[in-house]
Amino acid sequence: MRVPILKLHNYLLISVQVELDDQTALQFQEDLLSKIHKEGSTGVVIDLTSVEMIDSFIAKVLGEVVEMSNLMGAKVVLTGIQPAVAITLIDMGIKLEEVPTALDLEQGLEKLQQELEG
Amino acid sequence: MRVPILKLHNYLLISVQVELDDQTALQFQEDLLSKIHKEGSTGVVIDLTSVEMIDSFIAKVLGEVVEMSNLMGAKVVLTGIQPAVAITLIDMGIKLEEVPTALDLEQGLEKLQQELEG
Repeated sequence: MRVPILKLHNYLLISVQVELDDQTALQFQEDLLSKIHKEGSTGVVIDLTSVEMIDSFIAKVLGEVVEMSNLMGAKVVLTGIQPAVAITLIDMGIKLEEVPTALDLEQGLEKLQQELEG
Repeated sequence: MRVPILKLHNYLLISVQVELDDQTALQFQEDLLSKIHKEGSTGVVIDLTSVEMIDSFIAKVLGEVVEMSNLMGAKVVLTGIQPAVAITLIDMGIKLEEVPTALDLEQGLEKLQQELEG
């Protein structure tokens, strides 16, 4: 199963609405990085509204996706992080201090525009 | 498997990137109509760029989704229709004459804005 990635101008939009098992998460990581490279995207919004919880492996992969995307020149905004997901990320020591977050996809896009223009 | 539906302001964005079997297509129909109702969406862009071919059942469901969405007050734009998909739709007699189409998601969104504002 793959997480669909939508291209909108210079941005990529991802709304994770499938259950993230290990294989899906790794495939997503690969797909996203390829797409950033192919499209020359400057920003990515990953919406986690539908994700109710994650395990430590997925938390690690998510943290890595953010770092790798930044390294490739694409700013990542995470949106819709639910309590259990926030807990796992912090418990796992995933440093997202400098990662902008927002409530939903729309606010994530606005934040991305602010970050990239400001 | 479900087709993810992204909400962006008054619009819903769908990029079909999974194989549409009968069950998935019917589930998508149901999900989309519920989401239009719930969010009060005025427009929908369905991007079919990744869909290489469809069978007659899926063609019928797609045609119905467009009609049902319009009936509910949401304008549908189809984007990225590939040759084999176009052939099946026409062969099946699915009337999409009044449905706006566009090359990709971005142009679909522009078209939707034109249709709704113009």
